[in-house]
Amino acid sequence: MFDYHSHFEAAIAALRNERRYRVFADLQRQVGRFPRAIWRRDGQEEEVSIWCSNDYLAMGHHPKVVEAMRNAALTMGAGAGGTRNISGTNRPLVELENELCDLHHKESALVFTSGFVSNEAAISTIARLLPDCLILSDQLNHASMIEGVKHAGTQKQIWRHNDLAHLEELLKAAGKDRAKLIVFESVYSMDGDVAPIEKIADLADEYGALTYIDEVHAVGMYGERGAGICERDGVMDRIDIIEGTLAKAFGTLGGYVTGPAAIMDAVRSYAPGFIFTTALPPAIAAAACASIRHLKTSQEERAGQQRQAARTKEVLRRAGLPVMPSETHIVPVLVGEPEACKAASDRLMEKHRIYIQPINYPTVPRGTERLRITPTPMHDDQLIDQLAEALVETWLALDLPLNRPDVVDTAPARAQIFAASGG
Amino acid sequence: MFDYHSHFEAAIAALRNERRYRVFADLQRQVGRFPRAIWRRDGQEEEVSIWCSNDYLAMGHHPKVVEAMRNAALTMGAGAGGTRNISGTNRPLVELENELCDLHHKESALVFTSGFVSNEAAISTIARLLPDCLILSDQLNHASMIEGVKHAGTQKQIWRHNDLAHLEELLKAAGKDRAKLIVFESVYSMDGDVAPIEKIADLADEYGALTYIDEVHAVGMYGERGAGICERDGVMDRIDIIEGTLAKAFGTLGGYVTGPAAIMDAVRSYAPGFIFTTALPPAIAAAACASIRHLKTSQEERAGQQRQAARTKEVLRRAGLPVMPSETHIVPVLVGEPEACKAASDRLMEKHRIYIQPINYPTVPRGTERLRITPTPMHDDQLIDQLAEALVETWLALDLPLNRPDVVDTAPARAQIFAASGG
Ligand SMILES: Cc1ncc(COP(=O)(O)O)c(C=O)c1O
Ligand SMILES: Cc1ncc(COP(=O)(O)O)c(C=O)c1O
Repeated sequence: MFDYHSHFEAAIAALRNERRYRVFADLQRQVGRFPRAIWRRDGQEEEVSIWCSNDYLAMGHHPKVVEAMRNAALTMGAGAGGTRNISGTNRPLVELENELCDLHHKESALVFTSGFVSNEAAISTIARLLPDCLILSDQLNHASMIEGVKHAGTQKQIWRHNDLAHLEELLKAAGKDRAKLIVFESVYSMDGDVAPIEKIADLADEYGALTYIDEVHAVGMYGERGAGICERDGVMDRIDIIEGTLAKAFGTLGGYVTGPAAIMDAVRSYAPGFIFTTALPPAIAAAACASIRHLKTSQEERAGQQRQAARTKEVLRRAGLPVMPSETHIVPVLVGEPEACKAASDRLMEKHRIYIQPINYPTVPRGTERLRITPTPMHDDQLIDQLAEALVETWLALDLPLNRPDVVDTAPARAQIFAASGG
Repeated sequence: MFDYHSHFEAAIAALRNERRYRVFADLQRQVGRFPRAIWRRDGQEEEVSIWCSNDYLAMGHHPKVVEAMRNAALTMGAGAGGTRNISGTNRPLVELENELCDLHHKESALVFTSGFVSNEAAISTIARLLPDCLILSDQLNHASMIEGVKHAGTQKQIWRHNDLAHLEELLKAAGKDRAKLIVFESVYSMDGDVAPIEKIADLADEYGALTYIDEVHAVGMYGERGAGICERDGVMDRIDIIEGTLAKAFGTLGGYVTGPAAIMDAVRSYAPGFIFTTALPPAIAAAACASIRHLKTSQEERAGQQRQAARTKEVLRRAGLPVMPSETHIVPVLVGEPEACKAASDRLMEKHRIYIQPINYPTVPRGTERLRITPTPMHDDQLIDQLAEALVETWLALDLPLNRPDVVDTAPARAQIFAASGG
């Protein structure tokens, strides 16, 4: 007889050996005390400061958002009660899709249960519906996009991260007459760098390719109305399909794609991940809608985030910490080794009550293990100073190098390591 | 240049030609008025009765569930703020997983953003982690399980629906030493028939296979504590992995798997669909927990559903309507042709303000198009009588046959058609 148990045990042991086994911290966030949370372990409770939240603008705790959720729950209940087609299309969800069309100036929008599912479902379905489609995927695309590319089952080619010359080479080789889908992100969430969107759009026009951008780490945070980097850079109309999440800066749950009506209708009609699953509850849709609407006019949260992120980078750099270059609100601090990364994270929690998860392979390439810090408008100057002190204490205690001359521009190094590790 | 637009237009036109193009009804459910909802179209509002909800026990509107959601939103906010690993593991989610272990008497549980994702992620990951795993999949498994089977990338064989002899044949041919995963459902949601679970478990023991059951249309509704058909039949410990949803009888959103600690830990650690996505919001987890806890002790909802489902079947049959045989709460009424099925649904809505979606291919095999009716404890006798009258009026108006002698046991016929259409 086949011994199942030992195989699963071995799979877990392999992660432990590589120091990649993850233990989730049990956290209870508290409205009104952001970014503080209660951390529970072994029956004990402690207050900690969260420095790695993707509730980037604290919108998940915004009174308008919380109230919208509570009201919708009171009047419409806790769930949708069906798939989109079978009694699950609720009013707030229809309004949310309209709101998203308006946000991105697109003909149509589709909401999914998550950003992950929106990428998986939309990319795979779009590519599958085109004859002999070639997918051109940026080397550092998120796991959800990679799943979409894989599940399309069509040919794919990986272009070196943000490398326009390489992309052009591949486009040229494919020829103008072949169906081609370029998939990439605006803000890459682990490094905080930004794609050359306009130039990618130029290439797409020249060679006749469809463009699909993931703005998951940008929506709500960039652009005059929070539509993302495409809005900020004035190129929203140059990209065919814009994908985003409702679960990060918008503070709730769910994901979406927006784009031309025919493409959206095709995804709606053909994607199993959209069709065969219960719709998002009205309370979630109403909360997301309230959040988007607020961020369409309010600049306060975006300004606060940029200000505190800039200050965090500056204070950490001045303290000699290896802050990796980042053009955005993301502040990655390089460790470069999984065990030390985990140890640094543990020490910050145990000794300083600061919660920052270690980011190890496969989320980032080996050798670039890091602490990924995400300052929000609610992380005030005092918290930033405390963070810097705690990090320096930790770096000294673990014998990690300060004032590293090599952390000036690690992006090329990172790309090389990544290529070597097999993509 | 490649013409993208015309390809997507053609894909949609193909659906229209086959009468499979779906238009979603815009519904607003109202707490306190279940199963009634407000239907919006062309700027007008009408009240309709929903007869196809998967909020099977109306738990999405239960005061305990709504209150749990509202309270958690007030104290913990609208979103989780991160993936499970990166600050998104919230207290209610940990409690929910504990509650699910207790419900199914399993060592461990994992919650996903949907039942769809739980099937896709768990099946593909479990099979992928075993060397040369053969997946044996029931012919009528749900789309989410089929995606899981496909994405595993291992060998698969389809066994004829609920056919033990066929399953045994395939198990025998594979041999005892090969890794084998049997995936099937307890209640098949489009027909309402039930798998021979104990006998499948016997075969699995004899030939050394792992068993994975989808109890999505059974949890909350069967068994003394609502753990599903495995509980009702006293075979919960005979099945390795039990999968369920929080979005149907439990009335909220999300999905889960429960099973041996090592398998759950492996899925937790290796499944992209679990790892790389924002966790379920605390408010959703708290609502689901409240629902599960209520249904662990209350028999009222289950009894009410069984009573009203039995009555619906009886009243419809007596009226001469072609009620397909079903052992459960699901009441399928056969139409057998997509255009008529859509026309019947439209007429019920337009003329009778009764909302029942047509179920056409690919959700069911061609030739078995049907109206799928799901009575809840809130569909009272008067509503059932109105439904019967409306259906008879519709059947006469559309010239559909009443008193069909052939609708006695369509299950074998259905299976054949399905096999012919290529699975
Ligand atoms: C770039 C990117 N795309 C998509 C996702 C998935 O979004 P969601 O959390 O809504 O599933 C994430 C992170 O979770 C991400 O980082
Ligand atoms: C058998 C079965 N499994 C899984 C699912 C997916 O569950 P969820 O709606 O939670 O995604 C469904 C329906 O949606 C289903 O019918």
